[in-house]
This record gives sequence, C-alpha cells and structure tokens, in this order.
Amino acid sequence: MYYKTKTIAVRYGETDQMGFVHHSNYLKYFELARIEWLLDLGISYAAMELDGILMPVVSARVKFKIPLLFGDNFNVKISLKKEPKATLEFDYIIINQKNEIICIGNTVLAFLSSMKKRPVRCPKFLLDKFN
Amino acid sequence: MYYKTKTIAVRYGETDQMGFVHHSNYLKYFELARIEWLLDLGISYAAMELDGILMPVVSARVKFKIPLLFGDNFNVKISLKKEPKATLEFDYIIINQKNEIICIGNTVLAFLSSMKKRPVRCPKFLLDKFN
Amino acid sequence: MYYKTKTIAVRYGETDQMGFVHHSNYLKYFELARIEWLLDLGISYAAMELDGILMPVVSARVKFKIPLLFGDNFNVKISLKKEPKATLEFDYIIINQKNEIICIGNTVLAFLSSMKKRPVRCPKFLLDKFN
Amino acid sequence: MYYKTKTIAVRYGETDQMGFVHHSNYLKYFELARIEWLLDLGISYAAMELDGILMPVVSARVKFKIPLLFGDNFNVKISLKKEPKATLEFDYIIINQKNEIICIGNTVLAFLSSMKKRPVRCPKFLLDKFN
Repeated sequence: MYYKTKTIAVRYGETDQMGFVHHSNYLKYFELARIEWLLDLGISYAAMELDGILMPVVSARVKFKIPLLFGDNFNVKISLKKEPKATLEFDYIIINQKNEIICIGNTVLAFLSSMKKRPVRCPKFLLDKFN
Repeated sequence: MYYKTKTIAVRYGETDQMGFVHHSNYLKYFELARIEWLLDLGISYAAMELDGILMPVVSARVKFKIPLLFGDNFNVKISLKKEPKATLEFDYIIINQKNEIICIGNTVLAFLSSMKKRPVRCPKFLLDKFN
Repeated sequence: MYYKTKTIAVRYGETDQMGFVHHSNYLKYFELARIEWLLDLGISYAAMELDGILMPVVSARVKFKIPLLFGDNFNVKISLKKEPKATLEFDYIIINQKNEIICIGNTVLAFLSSMKKRPVRCPKFLLDKFN
Repeated sequence: MYYKTKTIAVRYGETDQMGFVHHSNYLKYFELARIEWLLDLGISYAAMELDGILMPVVSARVKFKIPLLFGDNFNVKISLKKEPKATLEFDYIIINQKNEIICIGNTVLAFLSSMKKRPVRCPKFLLDKFN
C-alpha cells in the first residue's frame, strides 16, 4: 500500500557539476511526497502548522542506485512503514520515466508543539487517517 | 566606504551542471554579507527577528561578469547606497581570489513587524549605526 | 504574448524562517518557466546542452510585491522582451492562486559553447522558434 | 582520529519556516567537511574532478538530535569509518557553539570515471593519504 506522487520534472538548479541531481535534493523530494500524500488524504500540512503542530525529521536514510539527470521525470512512491505512534516512519522509492529505481529511502518524523517546541503525540486525526 | 566579508569557499552543492555556481546563489551570498556586516556593527539580525523586526527583500538586481567555479574563494564587498529611511538599499561586488569582479548587485530591504506582517520604519538603532 | 507555466505548489524547503518563500527561489522559478516554455515550443534545453550550447544568465532583476507562502500555488507568466540576438531577454510575472501578482522579473541570457566556454550566437532553430 | 572543520555560521537561507535549519542542508555540511578535510590532506577535490574522478554519494544516513538555528555556529567532525577500498565511508558529528551534538551521520562514496561514468577503484594517492 503506497501513494505515488504526480510526475515531477528535475529542475536545472537541482543538478550539480557532476551532471547529476545533487544528493541533498532527494530529501526534498521525499518531503514533497509526504505533503502531497497528506493533502490527498485531506490533511493540509500548512494548516497543521498554523494549528501549532510541527513535524521535524528525526532521522533520514537514502541509498542511491542511479542518478537523476536534468531532463528526467520522476515519481516518489511513499508508504507508511509501521503503525504511527510517537513518530511517523515512511519508506520511499523514487523511479524515473523508464521505471528504473533511482533511490530508496526512509525518514522518521516526530511531532512538536510550535509554541513550546516540545514533543507531542501524533494528533488523533492523523492516526485515524493512517489506520 | 564598504564592508568586505571574510573569504568564503564555493560549496560543491552550489554548482550546477554548467560547471558554474548556480546564479540563484549570489542572492544568498549578498544576504550573508548583509548579516555579517550587521554583526560587525554590533547588530545581531537573529536577535532583531526575535524582537519582532523582519527585513524582507523588496527588490534585487545582479549583473554577472565571470562565473564562480568550485575551487574558487570569494569575498563580498557591501556598501549602503543611500541614507536609510523606510528601506535599506545595498550595493554589492563579489570578487574572486584573483581579485576579478564576479558580479555586481543591489538589493532593497524593507522592515516588517513579525506579529502583524506590516511595514514598519527602520529601527532607530539601525539608523544610528549607519549614520 | 506570453507563456503560462503549469501550476506549481510551493515546496516546504523553499520557505525560510520569516515564513515566506526565500527570495532566491524566484530565480529558480523563472528558470523552470524558461525551460518549460522551450519544451512547449519543441526545444529540449537538456538536448541543447548535450549539443554543446549553454545558456548562462547574465543579468537578473526581481521586484517582490507579496510573498509566496507554503500552501500557495503559483504560475509563472513568461514573455520574450525583444527580438533575440546575441542574448535572449525574458520578462516574468508570478501570480498566486488568487491571481495576485507575487513578483515581476527580468533575465538576460547569453549563449556559450560548452567546449570553449566562449560566447556564441543564438542558434538558428531558437531564432526561428521565437520569430 | 577525526578532522574538525573550521567554524561555520548558519546561513539565513538554510532555515525553513519551522525556524530550524532545513534537514537537507546537513548533507551539504557533511560534503563541505569531506572537501575541507581532503584539502587539509593536500588533495583538491576540484583538481580530482578535472583529472576525471568523480565521487558520488551512494548512501547517506543522518540522525537529528537538536536543530541548528539561525545565529548558531557549528563544526563538523569527520572520520573515516574503515579502510578505503572500492568505496570511502565517513562518519560525521555536527556540534554547535555550546558543544552540543546536533546530529550524527554517515555517508558512503564511490569513485566514477567522469568520461565513462563507470565505477573505478579508489585512486592510489587517496589510499596513501588515508593509510
């Protein structure tokens, strides 16, 4: 069970002089996949922040298989790794227009109150959406 | 009368596949020059924001002469274009390790109250520093 | 006569702690509008580079009216300012989902041979497309 | 046995609207630590690329403890995890001005010929430096 993002074109400014997408950008691609998935589930992360809930990344892992190039289009497949509790854990696969696996990744996100900058529990409406 | 930043090394991730520093990064170099200059004048921009004053950029201009390359070091020379009033206007020159002019630029900054996100006047302590 | 890009969602990583899209990102938005327009005209910038033609930005200007926020969607309207010769000059307007003008901008691009890193003329197929 | 980078100031444009340094930037900080260390060992990564050797990142991991804030200064401590062979594996610790651990990370880098974009062995001069 995963969500697959819309097709995304590599942006020129995301490449580096090696001629590949700079590896730091994959963390940004994972992030937009999370946000697009939440939106698809009816949850606006922008509204969640206004309501005082932040979702910082507490760990991230990426294994790079094939570099993305300028001119490539890609999709991010995202799935929930396990039942959400104090944290949310996601797995990711990025595939290009030829359906080749570009990279696989994983991130763990926590919940923080924006006022006190203290950890809080996963909001109930989020738990409900993922269960 | 200008302030010259410390020497800065081009970061690998700032290049693009043309083999040059991506042009959007020069706006970030101008920004760090402003912040370093303010700090040199005894003003912490981080503290200013905590005190409720934001300084958004309202206009920016850059003319690119020679590209910066990975391996290059550079300095930003920054000066105040005119007496500060409702806005602050800065001129910039970036030079590389051979003293070649890389680009020249200009930005205008406004003052915004962070609570109301409304324009405010240039704080007196800033006016005093620049006069 | 202008080209209007597909609708683009602000990415979380494009914001800064002011809560606005960082001003350097607008240059990246202009860039993707150029590339999308060229593609719409049947020209792949990726292929042009492989053929040995680079298009560095030689000047850029932006006037910021209203900040883009996370949660916003926007379009870039791009038009050719004048007949292309040694350089290409583009005007840009970014509008948000409420049709408000976010910023206006202008960039001038030159043509460079990727082998010799020397200025070359605007390729004939590009001239033809824009005339 | 580790190398500790010069002190680096957080750049404004590296923050996001959560008020923290965006998590993707830590991969860029690790990268500049690698490059600064190589330079300290007498190896220019810029020259290595001109000689036809690229060093793409094949995997990356980060655990985030405390966020870096605008106004913070930090150092990256970098060490070689094991004897270099087909790949180079580095461990990283980022500490702030209070000597607090910000994050820990690990990256594995491969060697690629820039002409053929094919894996090559770790160059002998690099092996010698690290042994």
